[in-house]
Amino acid sequence: MKKIEAGDLDCIFKPRSIAVIGASDNSKKWGYQMIARPLQTGFKGSIYPVNTQKKEILGLPVYSNIKDVPGNVDLAVITTPSRSVPDLLRECALKGIKGAVVITAGFAEVGETGRILENEMVKAAQESKIRVIGPNCMGIWSSAARLSLCFPSAPKSGPMAFISQSGTFGGALANIANEKGYGLSKFVSIGNQADLEAADYIQYLASDDDTKVIILYLEGLKDGRRFFDVAKEVSRKKPIVVYKAGRSKAGARATMSHTASIAGSEKVFDSMCRQAGIIRVQEAFHLFEVAEALALLPLPSGNRVAILGSGGQGVVGTDACSALGLELPELDQKTSEAITSLLPAHAPQAKNPVDFAGSSRTALEEARIIERLLALNYIDGVISNVPVSPQIWNRALKIDVNSEQLPREIEVAIEGARVYASLPQKYGKPVICLRFARLEHDIMEQILGEGGIPIYDAPEQCARAMSTLYRYSKVRS
Amino acid sequence: MKKIEAGDLDCIFKPRSIAVIGASDNSKKWGYQMIARPLQTGFKGSIYPVNTQKKEILGLPVYSNIKDVPGNVDLAVITTPSRSVPDLLRECALKGIKGAVVITAGFAEVGETGRILENEMVKAAQESKIRVIGPNCMGIWSSAARLSLCFPSAPKSGPMAFISQSGTFGGALANIANEKGYGLSKFVSIGNQADLEAADYIQYLASDDDTKVIILYLEGLKDGRRFFDVAKEVSRKKPIVVYKAGRSKAGARATMSHTASIAGSEKVFDSMCRQAGIIRVQEAFHLFEVAEALALLPLPSGNRVAILGSGGQGVVGTDACSALGLELPELDQKTSEAITSLLPAHAPQAKNPVDFAGSSRTALEEARIIERLLALNYIDGVISNVPVSPQIWNRALKIDVNSEQLPREIEVAIEGARVYASLPQKYGKPVICLRFARLEHDIMEQILGEGGIPIYDAPEQCARAMSTLYRYSKVRS
Repeated sequence: MKKIEAGDLDCIFKPRSIAVIGASDNSKKWGYQMIARPLQTGFKGSIYPVNTQKKEILGLPVYSNIKDVPGNVDLAVITTPSRSVPDLLRECALKGIKGAVVITAGFAEVGETGRILENEMVKAAQESKIRVIGPNCMGIWSSAARLSLCFPSAPKSGPMAFISQSGTFGGALANIANEKGYGLSKFVSIGNQADLEAADYIQYLASDDDTKVIILYLEGLKDGRRFFDVAKEVSRKKPIVVYKAGRSKAGARATMSHTASIAGSEKVFDSMCRQAGIIRVQEAFHLFEVAEALALLPLPSGNRVAILGSGGQGVVGTDACSALGLELPELDQKTSEAITSLLPAHAPQAKNPVDFAGSSRTALEEARIIERLLALNYIDGVISNVPVSPQIWNRALKIDVNSEQLPREIEVAIEGARVYASLPQKYGKPVICLRFARLEHDIMEQILGEGGIPIYDAPEQCARAMSTLYRYSKVRS
Repeated sequence: MKKIEAGDLDCIFKPRSIAVIGASDNSKKWGYQMIARPLQTGFKGSIYPVNTQKKEILGLPVYSNIKDVPGNVDLAVITTPSRSVPDLLRECALKGIKGAVVITAGFAEVGETGRILENEMVKAAQESKIRVIGPNCMGIWSSAARLSLCFPSAPKSGPMAFISQSGTFGGALANIANEKGYGLSKFVSIGNQADLEAADYIQYLASDDDTKVIILYLEGLKDGRRFFDVAKEVSRKKPIVVYKAGRSKAGARATMSHTASIAGSEKVFDSMCRQAGIIRVQEAFHLFEVAEALALLPLPSGNRVAILGSGGQGVVGTDACSALGLELPELDQKTSEAITSLLPAHAPQAKNPVDFAGSSRTALEEARIIERLLALNYIDGVISNVPVSPQIWNRALKIDVNSEQLPREIEVAIEGARVYASLPQKYGKPVICLRFARLEHDIMEQILGEGGIPIYDAPEQCARAMSTLYRYSKVRS
């Protein structure tokens, strides 16, 4: 298989114009959604509906044939019946089109006839030099082009590219992850992978500036060897995080029926991941949780963590860190004394985890303690918590934090949070936060988030994120 | 220790009046919050602030001594310095008070002097026949009385009572769980457990009608034997779910410093849970997730599950179920054919998991398939998904589902969802749902939720919930 070079798939992910072949004015049809969705997400290029019967769809003029489209077309989106697809690709080639997303199902996944048709389609694509996503896929999202073929409204843009072998479920994961605040640079429902396959997307994304972490939902591999080689090369440069389904015997049976994937041996896949530097996660949503930390934070140089927070947070966090192979070194006498002097009078002497004893600390007070911990040569990263917003904030939610006239109490809190947020870059070590509540507009979360500190709901999530950073630091070194 | 009988702690959880001893008009003090919070959550009884200096706090008249309070007082909330507490309890007894929440810290957790003071306090409480929560605690929430000493605004009421050995962290868990939609009947920060301890709360909650599931965050036990005996008796009647912190060596060191708890042997605790019928969870938030299913659903009579959903949902769900000891029986020929006829034409033949092949099914269509599965004598429960709301709903979010004049499309969807929601009770088997998106007002989620079907973000959560129901069914039988 030909190596994908930087920019090779820009015709698909950054098209200046798309043609929708099989356009429809029935809002229940894919041929309608392929026009409606890019319009709704503010696609930056032109959209050319192609349909022999209609004159206008959603206010756009309709062309009866791809060759009648007036301008250049970069990407064809195809929703017509499977039998028509090979010839359509050849027509697209005559128009100079370089990429296609084939939504249409009824190929290899339905049995032998479909498999023959799929081979024919691949032959047409190769002869025409068109790169094809799908068939039997649910489309893509690309933040660079504001192009959505899969989501009805634009997801939050962000540093994760999500490659999914499952369309509906992958889309659902992306939806809910987005709702939880994780941002996507790309989403690709890869379908049957007749032409482009997982390894190709990884190769393309390796040099995509919008993507800092590549995450994959996989059920099985098409070309295991190539996947391994590509992943091994790319993982040195960008983290690759994989959730692999079909791990149980019953689950493997189900992948066969779902995507005709041979789930393969668990042991083989696991050792492949280790050798290729792929981070493997155990639950589907962990993909997004750990990718967030990988996208934002400097890597730790070891597995030695300090925790600062409430007593319970410290205990649960310590358990979770220990279970994942992270260590909590005891503090030296001098550090312990220095930190104790920064805690409220009733707090016990500072150990690791540091217990702030139920007293809400201001952002600056917490930052000072975290700074002491980060400065230690035997601490590689810190797990802490989101400081409590000043009470006055709760009564004045609409204050603009960048405004020049702020109440003094809020000014001080914002200053403190900015110091806090600057620490990971200052020390080149990761800081991860636990939140104690979800407020509507949390000034502290906002500033920490803008500064690149990931924030989680549970100590176990914080520990998983830290442990992933440590695992990836070993891949890089 | 005396057994707690039904209603014994009503003086604390359903007080008709409370006295706040150590009341303050400084909004940063506990003595202020103990008045402000019950006022904010709509506490149904009277609040009597007690303070020698002030005349009025938050519009309420202040009394200089507890004996000056005009009416009867059920519960005293004490925030004064630790040295004053034993004598105050004796004064409370003279006023006829039966319960106290002692927020004040500075007792056994600070060392020998504090331990002596705590013993003195217990002696005073026992002589005065006052039952005491704390000391060194963060207060309580009781939905029955709308009484909050811990949360600034009322959490959603619901069937879970949450007993936490950690104040700040327990409160944070409760906060975020509530924000995720889980409802609480009670929250108790149990503090040092000088008088009332975990076993007492369990005994009281066993006959509390507002509580369907008892959940606990524990670091260590005071009286392990009594806890075991009480849990063993109560778990036959109501599910008890426990998260136990201090499992790792480093974590156990941290519990010692946090709540002076001896975390104890993991093995011993685990076998105690099994023998006492306690459900133990591995991550803190799993407490709420599994409790939701336990509160709502009938118990399965075995471990045999069917899954209906998207292909990826089916594979991931099957993996997760298998890992937890649940089985996915293959469907018999007749059932497979019958269900296939209910699927879209392009869907593969129905197996278990049933793949609806990316086509959105209406609520009624899904309900018909689930019904076929529930009717099988070799299926004990079903994991499915939230059907897609009719498109028209997205354009008319504010429609009242109980209104008499609804568009036909919505009427049909609502009817279907009601059939769907009725299935667990009709067949006496659990149905658990995965959501594919979080919409602002999801009519389908609303109706399924009202009907008592728990809804989760991830297939792994669905599997954990189902497996917990199965585990608890074995405790009950």
